[in-house]
Amino acid sequence: MTDQDLLQRLAEPDDDEIASLDAWWRANNYLTVGQIYLRDNALLREPLTAEHIKPRLLGHWGTSPGLSFIYAHVSRLIRRTGQEAIYLAGPGHGGPALVAAGYLEGTYSEVYPKVSLDETGMTRLFRQFSAPGGIPSHVSVTTPGSIHEGGELGYVLVHAFGSVMDNPGLLSIAVVGDGEAETGPLEGSWKGISFINPVRDGAVLPILHLNGAKIAGPTVLARKSPQEVHALLEGHGYDVIEVSGADVPGMHKRFAAALSDAWAKIKEIQEQARGGDWDGNRPRWPLIIMRTPKGWTGPNEVDGTQVTGTWRAHQVPLAGVRENADHRRLLEEWLRSYRPEELFDAEGRPAELVTALSPAGDLRMSASPHANGGVLTKDLDLPDFRDYAVDVKAPATERAESTRKLGELLRDVYRANDDRFRLFCPDETNSNRLGAVFEASDRAFMEQTFEHDTALSRDGRVMEVLSEHNCHGWLEGYNLTGRHGMFATYEAFAMVSASQTVQHGKWLQESRRLDWRAKVPSLNVLLTSTAWRNDHNGFSHQGPGLIQVVLTQRGDIARVYLPPDANTLLSVADHCLRSRSYINLIVIDKQPQPQWLTMDEAIEHCTRGAGVWHWAGNDDGGGEPDIVLACAGDVVTMETVAAAQILRERLPELSVRVVNVVDLMGLVRPKDHPHGMTEERFTELFTDTVDVIFAFHGYPGAIHQLVHGRPDADRFRVRGFVEEGTTTTPFDMTVRNRASRYHLVMDAINNATRRPDGASALKDWCKAKLAEHEAYVVEHMEDMPEIRDWSL
Amino acid sequence: MTDQDLLQRLAEPDDDEIASLDAWWRANNYLTVGQIYLRDNALLREPLTAEHIKPRLLGHWGTSPGLSFIYAHVSRLIRRTGQEAIYLAGPGHGGPALVAAGYLEGTYSEVYPKVSLDETGMTRLFRQFSAPGGIPSHVSVTTPGSIHEGGELGYVLVHAFGSVMDNPGLLSIAVVGDGEAETGPLEGSWKGISFINPVRDGAVLPILHLNGAKIAGPTVLARKSPQEVHALLEGHGYDVIEVSGADVPGMHKRFAAALSDAWAKIKEIQEQARGGDWDGNRPRWPLIIMRTPKGWTGPNEVDGTQVTGTWRAHQVPLAGVRENADHRRLLEEWLRSYRPEELFDAEGRPAELVTALSPAGDLRMSASPHANGGVLTKDLDLPDFRDYAVDVKAPATERAESTRKLGELLRDVYRANDDRFRLFCPDETNSNRLGAVFEASDRAFMEQTFEHDTALSRDGRVMEVLSEHNCHGWLEGYNLTGRHGMFATYEAFAMVSASQTVQHGKWLQESRRLDWRAKVPSLNVLLTSTAWRNDHNGFSHQGPGLIQVVLTQRGDIARVYLPPDANTLLSVADHCLRSRSYINLIVIDKQPQPQWLTMDEAIEHCTRGAGVWHWAGNDDGGGEPDIVLACAGDVVTMETVAAAQILRERLPELSVRVVNVVDLMGLVRPKDHPHGMTEERFTELFTDTVDVIFAFHGYPGAIHQLVHGRPDADRFRVRGFVEEGTTTTPFDMTVRNRASRYHLVMDAINNATRRPDGASALKDWCKAKLAEHEAYVVEHMEDMPEIRDWSL
Repeated sequence: MTDQDLLQRLAEPDDDEIASLDAWWRANNYLTVGQIYLRDNALLREPLTAEHIKPRLLGHWGTSPGLSFIYAHVSRLIRRTGQEAIYLAGPGHGGPALVAAGYLEGTYSEVYPKVSLDETGMTRLFRQFSAPGGIPSHVSVTTPGSIHEGGELGYVLVHAFGSVMDNPGLLSIAVVGDGEAETGPLEGSWKGISFINPVRDGAVLPILHLNGAKIAGPTVLARKSPQEVHALLEGHGYDVIEVSGADVPGMHKRFAAALSDAWAKIKEIQEQARGGDWDGNRPRWPLIIMRTPKGWTGPNEVDGTQVTGTWRAHQVPLAGVRENADHRRLLEEWLRSYRPEELFDAEGRPAELVTALSPAGDLRMSASPHANGGVLTKDLDLPDFRDYAVDVKAPATERAESTRKLGELLRDVYRANDDRFRLFCPDETNSNRLGAVFEASDRAFMEQTFEHDTALSRDGRVMEVLSEHNCHGWLEGYNLTGRHGMFATYEAFAMVSASQTVQHGKWLQESRRLDWRAKVPSLNVLLTSTAWRNDHNGFSHQGPGLIQVVLTQRGDIARVYLPPDANTLLSVADHCLRSRSYINLIVIDKQPQPQWLTMDEAIEHCTRGAGVWHWAGNDDGGGEPDIVLACAGDVVTMETVAAAQILRERLPELSVRVVNVVDLMGLVRPKDHPHGMTEERFTELFTDTVDVIFAFHGYPGAIHQLVHGRPDADRFRVRGFVEEGTTTTPFDMTVRNRASRYHLVMDAINNATRRPDGASALKDWCKAKLAEHEAYVVEHMEDMPEIRDWSL
Repeated sequence: MTDQDLLQRLAEPDDDEIASLDAWWRANNYLTVGQIYLRDNALLREPLTAEHIKPRLLGHWGTSPGLSFIYAHVSRLIRRTGQEAIYLAGPGHGGPALVAAGYLEGTYSEVYPKVSLDETGMTRLFRQFSAPGGIPSHVSVTTPGSIHEGGELGYVLVHAFGSVMDNPGLLSIAVVGDGEAETGPLEGSWKGISFINPVRDGAVLPILHLNGAKIAGPTVLARKSPQEVHALLEGHGYDVIEVSGADVPGMHKRFAAALSDAWAKIKEIQEQARGGDWDGNRPRWPLIIMRTPKGWTGPNEVDGTQVTGTWRAHQVPLAGVRENADHRRLLEEWLRSYRPEELFDAEGRPAELVTALSPAGDLRMSASPHANGGVLTKDLDLPDFRDYAVDVKAPATERAESTRKLGELLRDVYRANDDRFRLFCPDETNSNRLGAVFEASDRAFMEQTFEHDTALSRDGRVMEVLSEHNCHGWLEGYNLTGRHGMFATYEAFAMVSASQTVQHGKWLQESRRLDWRAKVPSLNVLLTSTAWRNDHNGFSHQGPGLIQVVLTQRGDIARVYLPPDANTLLSVADHCLRSRSYINLIVIDKQPQPQWLTMDEAIEHCTRGAGVWHWAGNDDGGGEPDIVLACAGDVVTMETVAAAQILRERLPELSVRVVNVVDLMGLVRPKDHPHGMTEERFTELFTDTVDVIFAFHGYPGAIHQLVHGRPDADRFRVRGFVEEGTTTTPFDMTVRNRASRYHLVMDAINNATRRPDGASALKDWCKAKLAEHEAYVVEHMEDMPEIRDWSL
C-alpha cells in the first residue's frame, strides 16, 4: 500500500471502522457515566434502582465524551500507521474518560489487577472513582498513560512540547480545553512550535476542544467569532483544521478526515526535513479545532432546562438520582443509549467490536513507555566534575564566578548527551554565566534568523524563551519522558513558576508510591542572580521565596542546596544530575566570589552536607566553643568568615566555631527528611547548648522551622533576608538586612557563653564601622560599584 | 473647532508641533543616556573626560527611546484633547526614560525637591540612577506616574485593564515589550477587552513595541512574519494599527497619525455606547504595533559590530567608556547628537521648546492622580456586617456554609458601591458559595451571550475569567487606582499567582516609605476550597502554600486571618475591606461547618486576634492547665474542640485549655509585627511552660517560625498539613496528616504536665478508633460522602 493509499484509507473510514470507533467511544462513555453514578449493577443487567446509585455524585461529565472521541480516533490512527503517540488531556477533569480508555485497552488491569476486565473489575472501577482511597476525578499520576495531571490548568502544551524534544518518533496529542485556554500559562505556550525542530524533535498535535463552557459560564474562545479564533491560531503559526458538530456518524467521518489530514501534514514536514529538503522556515504545523457540545451524548434537557452544551453539563448533569425517580429514569435511558449489551460480553469483558480498535502492546497510549519515562531513562554520560575545579590553594585566595565553572561542565554534558540533556532558561544563560554551553550548542529558534545573531539556530538545543512557565513546563515534559535537564533562572522570578514546582513535586511524590511508575530524572532548578547581589535592579528582583516553597514539600522529594563556591557547586550539580525523582533546588550567585574549598574538601563537605570550617574559626575542637557562627549561602558565608576573622583578630580569647551548611535538609530531624543529620552529628556541629548565630541566604523563618525540635532550638538566632531591599551594593544589602559581618560579630558577643575583656570595645568598633558605612553610602552613592572592605 | 478638525490636527502635526515633539524626545533621550553614563558635566559644557563618567555603567538603553517617543506623542494628545491618561511601561527596564519624562514634566522635582530643574538637579538625577541609595534601573514605586513596576514581566495589560474598570474617563496607555510579550501572563492578558464595557469603563490602548530583541537574543514576535503578528492580535479582537521605521520626522508624522486614529476609534466606541448606540457586540478596540530598532538613535556600530537593532543595545551599548577614549568619543557624539544646547537653558532648565509639549497639572501623566490612586480612594459604603450574622445559641449547634454569609455581605457591598468595588474570581464564585453577589450584579462579559446564560451580561461587574493571573492583576490595577476589591480563589491554585502577591506586597511596602504616595485599598485575597475538604479532587488540589508565601512579607503589609466560622469571617472581612495598603489573606472553607461564636463573641475574638475558648476546655482559669490545645483554621479547630471534648469526657482530671487563633500574625513577637501580641498576652494564652499542641490549617513549619523567640518555643508541637493528600473525606485527611481529634488527644496525653489514671487507656481507645477508621475506609470507600463521627 502506498502512502497515498494509506492516507486515503485513514481519511475515509469504512463502515466497519466507524462501527468500531463508535463502539469504543460508546463503551468509554458508558464507563465514564458508570464511574460518576454507579456503585452496582454495572452492566445494567437489571433495572436501575436507588441502591445502584452512589451515595454522593462527583465527577466531571462535560468534557469527557470529547476526550474519548479524540482518543478513539487517535487509537485508530496508531493501529493503521504504527505511530508512537501519547495523549495529554488538558481538561484533566475528564478523568473518567482517560481511566476508561486505559481500562478498555487492558492497561488498567495490568497495572491494577484488582480492577479486572470483568464485571467485578468494572464495579471496582466505578466505585474507586472520586471515592476515599480511590482515584481523583481528574487525570492523575495513577492514570496509566498520563504525564499530565489535570489539576492546575495551563500546562498541557508545555508538557507536550517538552515530551517531544529530542524524541523524533513521538507524536504528542495535546487536547486543550477552552477553559484552560483562558489561563496565562496556556496562552503563553502555543508558541512552542517556534522552538521545535522537525528533524530532531517529534511533533505536538494540539487539539483545541471548544465545548463552550467552563464550571459556571461560557468561555471566551467559545464565544468569540470563529474567524477570530482561526486568526488567533494562525497568528501563532499553525495550519488550522476545523471540525464541528454533534452528528454521528458524520462527526466520525469528519474527524477521521481532519486527523488524517493533520497526521499527513506532520509526516510531510518531518519527512521533508529529515530527507534534507527543509527550507529552514518554521513549518506550519497542523492544529485541530474541534467544536462539540459540552456533555455531548448526555441528557439534553433536565427538568425543562437545557443541559448539554452549557456549563450545567460540566460536572454531574443529573442530580439527586438516588431520590428522584425521574432523574433515575433519565440516567438509565442515558446509560442504555450506549447499548452496553453490544459492548461488553456476559462476563463484562469488552467485546471484540470494542477491542478491535485498540493498538497492541506499547502502542496503546495508556501503555506508552514515553508516558512512564523512567523506563526509558538512560543515565547521563557525565564528565568528571573534578576536571572543572577551581584550584584553591588556601581559602579565599581565589575569586571566581562559580556558575561559570558549572557552565563549562554543562557544555560537556551537552556534548556527551546530545539526545538526552537540555538547559532551559528565560533568556539569561549568558547573564547567569552559563554561556559556555553555547560552545556545544546554539539556542533553539525556528523563526527568522539573521547573520548578526549569535548562538542561535534551528539546530540549537539550549532552550531560551522569556517565560518561566515555558521553561519549567518544557523541562517537566522532558523529565517525565525520561530525559535530563536543568532550569536556570533569576532567584526572585522563580516565584513565577512556583506553582509548577509545587505541582511537579506532588506528581513526583505520588509517583513514588506507585510501583509501576519508574523513577524519572530529577527536576533540577538553579537559582542565580540572587537577592543579595542584584545591584542595580532593586527590591522587585530581591526575593529568595522559592526556598520557602520547596521546604513545604516532603522529604521524599525535596532537596535544597546552597553551595558557597565553585567546587561545592560542581559537586552538588554532579549529584543532582545523577539523581532521580527529586526537586533539586540549587542556589548560588553568579558574580565573582571568594573560593573556599579545594575539590577534595568540597566533595567531603557536600557528602556530609555540613561541616566545621576549622580554618575560619579558632575553636580547637576540644570542648565547646563560646559561640557557633553558622552559615548557608554564598554571600552570608563570606560575611560569616569575615565576622570570625574579626573576632579572631580582635577578641582572640573568644572561642568561635564556624559551621557551613550546603545541604539545607541536613538540619531537619532524620524522621522528617532522609538527609536529616543524626542527633549526634547535629550536636557535634552545633553543640547542645551554645548559642548559634546563623547567617542564612533566605528568610530567617526557614531556619527556625528547620531546626525546630533540635536540642534547644531557641538558641538559634538567625540573620537572613528580611525584605529590606533596594538598589544598592551587596555589602549594603547585608547591612540593611542586619546580616553583615559587623552585625554577626555583635550577635556573637551578645550571645556567647563568655564575655572576654574587650568585647564591649569590639561592639563599639562594629557600630562605628556601620556608621562609617552609612556615611559613606550617603556621600558616595554613585562611586560604589563595590563597597570598600567587602572582601576578605 | 469640530471634532473632525481636531482629529485632523491631531493626525497631522504641523512643523512647530513636530519640532516640539522632537525636542521633548531628544531631551528625554539625552537625560536617559545621561543617567546611564554621566556623573558630572551634565550639560556637556566641556569636552567629556573620564572623570565625568560613572565608575560603573548600569542601565537599559535599548527600550528607552521607544518608550519616550510614545510618551511624547501621548503628551501631545493630552494637551490637544484634555484626555486623562496614565502610562504603563511594560518594558519597565526603560526606567530612565520614564524618570526623565517625570523630570521634564516637573513632577519629579515637585516630589523630590532635591532633584531640581537645574544643573545641580540634573546631576543628582544622573547620579541617583542605579546607584546605592538611589533608584533602580527600571520603573518602580519611586517613579511618579507609575502604577506598574518593571521588574517581574508580564502584568502590564492586567494592570492597565484593572485601572480602567469603573473609570470611564481614563485612558491607560500600556506599552508591551516584545520580550514581555513572550511571558504566559502577558499572552493571557490580551483578552482583557472581552471584559471591558465601553459605557462604564475607560479604555486601554495597548502599544506592542517590537524592537526585536530581549537581553541576549531576538524575540519570537519580532521574528515572526508581520502577517502572523497581525493575525494574532486581530484574533484577540483588536483593530490593529501598524507603524514602523526609524526615520525622523517621518516617524513623528506616522505615529501621530496612528495615535490619532486609535484615539478617534476609542472615542467613537465610547461616545456611541454612552449615547445608547451600542449594538452590544464587543467593540474592536484599537491597538498599535510600533516597530522601531532597539536602541534607536544610539550608536549604530561599535568596534565594527552592529549594535542598534540587536540585543547588544539592550543595556549599555558602549562599554568601558572611562578607559576607552574611542568609546568616550562615541558617547560624546551620541549625547551631542541630541543638541542639548537647544534643549536646556543656561541653568539647565528644560527650554520652552521642550516644556511646550507637556500637559498642565494633573493631566501630566507623571502627575496623574490615577497613578497615585490613594488620593482618589473613597471609603466603601459598608453595610453593618452584624446584619449577616449566623444566630449561634451555643457553640456547634448550628452548621453553615460560612462563605455564603460573606457572599451576602459582598452582594450588598456591590449594591452600595457600584463605582468602586469588584470581586475577582477564576470562575468559582458560585462554587465558593459567594453566588449571592449575582443578585446585585452579573458577571462581566462582552463576547456573545445566549438566552440560557445565567448571571452574565455586558453590564455585569463580577469579574470571572479562568486565569488567576488576570484576576489578581486586574485587582491590583483596580486597587492602585484607588478602588476596592477582593480576589477569591481555590486555596491550592493561589500559588499560580503567588509571585504577583509577592510583587504587589513589595510595591505596597516600598510605597509606605514614600510620603507622596497615598495609601490604597488593601489587596484582599480569600482562599477557600481548602486542602482539608477537597473531597474528590485529591492531592493536586491540596496545598496551603500561599500562607507560607505571605509569611515571608514584612509585618508592615502582611496579614493572615483564619476565621473558624461565619461570624468571625464577617468580622474579619469588614476589617479588611476598611484597611489600606495591606495584603490581607483570609482562609476559610466553603462547606457546611460548625458555628462557634455569637456575633458579639466573634467581634471580641477577632479584635483580640486569639482567645481562650473556655467552653471548649475544662481549665478553670485559675492556675495553669496541664496542656494547651491551640488551633488556627476551621477544620483543625473542629478537631481540636472534638479532642478537648473527648478529654473532658474521658479524662476529666486532665485540665485542658483550648486557644483559637484568628489573626496568625498575633503569634509573632511585637517587634516583628504590629499585630504581635505582648509577652504578657502570649503567656496568658499559652502559659510559659505548658506544652502546646497546635493544630494548624497549613504547614506546621509556619507555626514553628511564628513562635520562634516566644518563651520556650520548643514546647509547641504542631500538627498541620504535611503533604499527605488524596481523594478522600475531610476526616480521613485529618487522619492521614496526623491532625485528627484522636491524634490530638494522644499528643495531649503524651505532653501534658500530668498523666492522670486512665491516660493509657484513652490512648489505646484513640488507637482503636483510628484502626476502626482505617478498616471502615477500606471497606466502605464509596459510601463515605462524610465520615461517621466527623462532627461534634
